[in-house]
Amino acid sequence: MTTTIKPRSRARDILARDACISPASVYDALSARVAEQVGFGLGLLSGSVASMTTLAAPDLIVLTMSEFAEQVRRIMRVSNLSLLVDADHGYGNALNVMRTVNELEHAGVSILGIEDTVQPQPYAHSGPAGLVSIAEMTGKLRAALAARQDPELVIAARLAGARSEGVEGTVARAKAYAQTGVDALFVVEVDDIEIIRGVSAATTLPLIIGSGAMTALRKELTPLRARILLQGHQPVAAAIKALRGAYEHLYRGGAPAEMKPSIASSAELDELMHADAYTTTRRAYLQ
Amino acid sequence: MTTTIKPRSRARDILARDACISPASVYDALSARVAEQVGFGLGLLSGSVASMTTLAAPDLIVLTMSEFAEQVRRIMRVSNLSLLVDADHGYGNALNVMRTVNELEHAGVSILGIEDTVQPQPYAHSGPAGLVSIAEMTGKLRAALAARQDPELVIAARLAGARSEGVEGTVARAKAYAQTGVDALFVVEVDDIEIIRGVSAATTLPLIIGSGAMTALRKELTPLRARILLQGHQPVAAAIKALRGAYEHLYRGGAPAEMKPSIASSAELDELMHADAYTTTRRAYLQ
Amino acid sequence: MTTTIKPRSRARDILARDACISPASVYDALSARVAEQVGFGLGLLSGSVASMTTLAAPDLIVLTMSEFAEQVRRIMRVSNLSLLVDADHGYGNALNVMRTVNELEHAGVSILGIEDTVQPQPYAHSGPAGLVSIAEMTGKLRAALAARQDPELVIAARLAGARSEGVEGTVARAKAYAQTGVDALFVVEVDDIEIIRGVSAATTLPLIIGSGAMTALRKELTPLRARILLQGHQPVAAAIKALRGAYEHLYRGGAPAEMKPSIASSAELDELMHADAYTTTRRAYLQ
Amino acid sequence: MTTTIKPRSRARDILARDACISPASVYDALSARVAEQVGFGLGLLSGSVASMTTLAAPDLIVLTMSEFAEQVRRIMRVSNLSLLVDADHGYGNALNVMRTVNELEHAGVSILGIEDTVQPQPYAHSGPAGLVSIAEMTGKLRAALAARQDPELVIAARLAGARSEGVEGTVARAKAYAQTGVDALFVVEVDDIEIIRGVSAATTLPLIIGSGAMTALRKELTPLRARILLQGHQPVAAAIKALRGAYEHLYRGGAPAEMKPSIASSAELDELMHADAYTTTRRAYLQ
Repeated sequence: MTTTIKPRSRARDILARDACISPASVYDALSARVAEQVGFGLGLLSGSVASMTTLAAPDLIVLTMSEFAEQVRRIMRVSNLSLLVDADHGYGNALNVMRTVNELEHAGVSILGIEDTVQPQPYAHSGPAGLVSIAEMTGKLRAALAARQDPELVIAARLAGARSEGVEGTVARAKAYAQTGVDALFVVEVDDIEIIRGVSAATTLPLIIGSGAMTALRKELTPLRARILLQGHQPVAAAIKALRGAYEHLYRGGAPAEMKPSIASSAELDELMHADAYTTTRRAYLQ
Repeated sequence: MTTTIKPRSRARDILARDACISPASVYDALSARVAEQVGFGLGLLSGSVASMTTLAAPDLIVLTMSEFAEQVRRIMRVSNLSLLVDADHGYGNALNVMRTVNELEHAGVSILGIEDTVQPQPYAHSGPAGLVSIAEMTGKLRAALAARQDPELVIAARLAGARSEGVEGTVARAKAYAQTGVDALFVVEVDDIEIIRGVSAATTLPLIIGSGAMTALRKELTPLRARILLQGHQPVAAAIKALRGAYEHLYRGGAPAEMKPSIASSAELDELMHADAYTTTRRAYLQ
Repeated sequence: MTTTIKPRSRARDILARDACISPASVYDALSARVAEQVGFGLGLLSGSVASMTTLAAPDLIVLTMSEFAEQVRRIMRVSNLSLLVDADHGYGNALNVMRTVNELEHAGVSILGIEDTVQPQPYAHSGPAGLVSIAEMTGKLRAALAARQDPELVIAARLAGARSEGVEGTVARAKAYAQTGVDALFVVEVDDIEIIRGVSAATTLPLIIGSGAMTALRKELTPLRARILLQGHQPVAAAIKALRGAYEHLYRGGAPAEMKPSIASSAELDELMHADAYTTTRRAYLQ
Repeated sequence: MTTTIKPRSRARDILARDACISPASVYDALSARVAEQVGFGLGLLSGSVASMTTLAAPDLIVLTMSEFAEQVRRIMRVSNLSLLVDADHGYGNALNVMRTVNELEHAGVSILGIEDTVQPQPYAHSGPAGLVSIAEMTGKLRAALAARQDPELVIAARLAGARSEGVEGTVARAKAYAQTGVDALFVVEVDDIEIIRGVSAATTLPLIIGSGAMTALRKELTPLRARILLQGHQPVAAAIKALRGAYEHLYRGGAPAEMKPSIASSAELDELMHADAYTTTRRAYLQ
């Protein structure tokens, strides 16, 4: 299981080079392995997908930081992906941010985003999540940087206010966040490329771009220093559709053998489990 | 999340009635929810599938009992399935069996099978797993029964020697195991219905039948007291195939939007996450 | 390990009878066993002590709910104590309260207090923790009650505002909290018995009293419906002092044999580990 | 929390220098902090003590590897100790040894011993644990070395056969184990210094010496390349005695205030929790 490319070095390299790529949205050991086998070097575990797959719960911050870290650990135990995670608001105040950094760094994350939203949903508040003040957020970011043990770990400031604060507000935040010494800016809910243009012009950090209504292409974003472009969580939704099809077939009394064309073969499973390496290991140490 | 049917009551009912059904092979919170939504009341978490999905490892007992229990807990936290698990050999000797029963019972299992194989693979042993002696296995089964706290939990003796010991040997084991007071016999690797006929004639317990080359139908097995017939783990293999397709499409630069026909819709995801119930809850307690 | 008295029944009984007792402050499997051996039936795991012993951290809500639940599970796996826990503010909003109740109930808690403080410490706020509004707190309490699966689990409303809101404010809160249907009121930081008199007169629920400068005796508190009086966390502090003495002796090169008078004997350790029961078990199932 | 001395570097240094020291037997975050505060740089978590403190169970391998790793993680999260652990037999066969190395390395262990005993207790076997063959043990050790990711992690071969195989047998094993490339030999249950003389003469590796009836002093052992001498687990036994005293006092109705002389003060607890550092952190990032 030793590898020559270290996940965090690859992550730093991705942010440094002049290209914009999209990560594989993964959610457990198995999906990480499949993504890696297909060729992905960069993975993404979002809080929403982690909540969905480990708790079958919507993205309402009911997943605990410990549960999120455990899922990261499961992924990193079996893959060499550079894993980008959205650690939500850092699960509390600046002290909680520090624990979040400690635990996620230990679990193997490569790029960790802390977001400027007020979470979880406050009492009697509806609508989109509000934002914490710039002062509070920069405190959190400085805390995150102080808590980091491995200098290769990328700490990203995640900006969620594009819709509520527009270009001007977002740029002001981006500049303040950049001054804390974070390694990247992670801008989400981007509906208009003007936000990216503004942030790019006002700072020198590499950008990670989250989903929204923006239809800009990677080649337009690359000159703006966008290095990573998120594009949704289709894989888990594909797995769900496949699961439903499989369960429905079997529930109706369909023959398992008829499912052959739509399921991975034994050989594919063996390859995914690194069965050959286990056989070699057993021969080497157990016989 | 309260329900009227309790998982263990349903499991006891399944074993008591005059019918043979097949469980949904599930492996995490998400697959359990999909299976339940489709209509399944009985789920199965096998050691091999748990190892595959949590460790991306082949079925070589490298998963720990704690890791297996955690996966059971994840499933039972979000579903009301009656969960049948194969707890392998009970992860060690009779004392380990007792801890296994304690932990899996606490995690929410309904039917727990302890197998008579020698595990993990002994040094310098190749070929199929050997069997422990009848005396050792009955010690383990009596230990399992003594460790049980909830009398509704079903303890099943899992017989893995059909191929190595044939009808006579398997029947002798079945009789000895039945005398310990276990609730069911779980016969695996059945290539020939004669094994089932023999076990059925020699005992009065309900039977759970594992995979093998046998092609008998449920209607032939029902009169032999077969109540549960395993039929493989297609759903996880279907999810893997779907994941691979999704990652390959995206890795080649395919547009996410093109994947729409092959992925679950937002509405389906919401239904799976019980989004409506969360909305109701938020309205009731958070506004 | 079956017992005749169930922890939650004993807890309900303690709250129902006309007496006021103090719990054993416990913090891990070992301390719980010692407390039980000495005779205690009621245990207490406070958030502060859990944080101290599992994270070596002060009481600043850096412990996650999952970590707290795991510590409860460790205690309840090996003891039959009725465990009272202070689940802080429920680790977030009303949705988080529901998860907290689910996890702690599953882990084996008997009495669970949710507190009305704003936690964790908000940005730019110093001094004692503020209080959430009555509306927010009653939302949390109703959520806790809705999340409970076992009707025997005691849900207590924990009032932390005695110092900041005085008798009148605390009584107003107590009345509002009582109307949600909680089973008990848990009043902390009580410096003056007038607070207890006020709460007692205004409600009919049993009271749990937390530490403060109040010097009232249990016999004065009993007629006010106080059923449980906390009196600090001396045991863990005693263990720490003993540990320091032991490490200092050994670090200075002192002989281990000289420590005999100040350490538990092998026989005591065996009794604590239920060594005899294990020997019986090994004879019964492993020979 | 950054430190200049890395735990594994210190461990390598301890094994390399011409001196023999004894570790602090620790068992949780709190005891590790106390030991470190007293001055210890080397800690020890034995399987027996881990089982006692996390499960209140005797040393019968009922603790799972995951549970053991979690306890290591708790210790290493809050201390900078070089932690020596006895990972028993590696929790199964050579494949399980590999997982054990992976998990314990990740959890932060500095020196990891794999023992040559047959564990857990086989059916119908009483008396001391038997030994696996030299071939099986060298397979396990080679597996452990192959699984190691950080070359600084010390892998030690633990020899438990001094009593059953005497000097000759133990020396033969020591030579064979040394040839696998392990970093140290860990000889336990040593009743007679002749065992150590034999092992020392036949190999060139540093030695770790476990408890037994031997009364040799460190200064006699040092010239034999003994670098670490275990001397029992008094600290946990001291904590237990202190806990019992505390609970008995309180159970009898004794006043908490009377316990002052025998418990750690608030100031001591604050120091142990690094309260000052937390205050500094709160000022820096939360105000």
